Amino acid sequence: MPEKPTILDHQLVAESRLFGIERLQLRFANGEERVYERLRTPRIPAVLVVAVKDNGNVLLVREYACGTHSYQLALPKGAMDGHETVFEAANRELMEEAGHGGRKFTELKALSMSPGYMGHMIHVVMAEDLFEKSLPGDEPEPLEVVEHPLEDIDRLLAMEDFTEARSLAALYMVRDIMRNRK
Amino acid sequence: MPEKPTILDHQLVAESRLFGIERLQLRFANGEERVYERLRTPRIPAVLVVAVKDNGNVLLVREYACGTHSYQLALPKGAMDGHETVFEAANRELMEEAGHGGRKFTELKALSMSPGYMGHMIHVVMAEDLFEKSLPGDEPEPLEVVEHPLEDIDRLLAMEDFTEARSLAALYMVRDIMRNRK
Repeated sequence: MPEKPTILDHQLVAESRLFGIERLQLRFANGEERVYERLRTPRIPAVLVVAVKDNGNVLLVREYACGTHSYQLALPKGAMDGHETVFEAANRELMEEAGHGGRKFTELKALSMSPGYMGHMIHVVMAEDLFEKSLPGDEPEPLEVVEHPLEDIDRLLAMEDFTEARSLAALYMVRDIMRNRK
Repeated sequence: MPEKPTILDHQLVAESRLFGIERLQLRFANGEERVYERLRTPRIPAVLVVAVKDNGNVLLVREYACGTHSYQLALPKGAMDGHETVFEAANRELMEEAGHGGRKFTELKALSMSPGYMGHMIHVVMAEDLFEKSLPGDEPEPLEVVEHPLEDIDRLLAMEDFTEARSLAALYMVRDIMRNRK
């Protein structure tokens, strides 16, 4: 692995309620110096849940997405609370967003979004042995829950409101696991 | 599709050289009002290139990622120049980052990272019929190019420095396409 650049200077240059923007002055191993900007990384990571029903369907939610100002179909997800384990957070988000709990959880991989500009990580968790149970969430309106066959990812790809790379990657991972079990 | 919330107010609340943070006051169809924050969306989208060699290997690059302060293995990618088509941008990024050009390009899907908080979109492009050709990029140090068998995504998942959801999703998409051709 190459030698990491040295951080010569590191400042918070802008901040809002949710976001912080950091500026780093870096010296690379070859002597090159550059100024980079990145988002501040949240202290606590998030979870993304692939909940698979016994019939082979997964649970998706349709939710308003402010970044794109559109309704988007994606996997249930959310930030972990400080005291929670990954599986506890996955189960809570699943209940809040998709009206289901799980009895079996498997952690698959922690994914980044754009590691060049942000350190945010999300833990991909597969949930099985599901049962119906809802918890109140903090959403402004109830989310629409959509069941979709895990084997039919191509139909999701054709939908304009299904675009989130993390959800897509997680669905493929779980599809591979399910295929390997057969 | 549900009715989108009404944007009651929309302000830029913080800004740096690269980033802008916007605050939106929204009224949902049910009357609920909320304040959301999101990143400003770049005017021009980006491209992500899955370049497949005739031997079934794909070209990955190992590059310093400031967000995670680590070297990360991922697909070649970058912002489009204003005058470029998606395929021109894909070919240029491939030459700059991975030392190859392509003669055949296929656009697969535009992916979002986190549509709740950012509108950034990246066009996933498959490149085939490759040839060696380098263009100078703007990186502070040369990138390490790594060939990896497209069929062996599981080995990538086991690597600590392979985490980027967009690259993972794009590799699975192309693996499906290649399998369907057989």
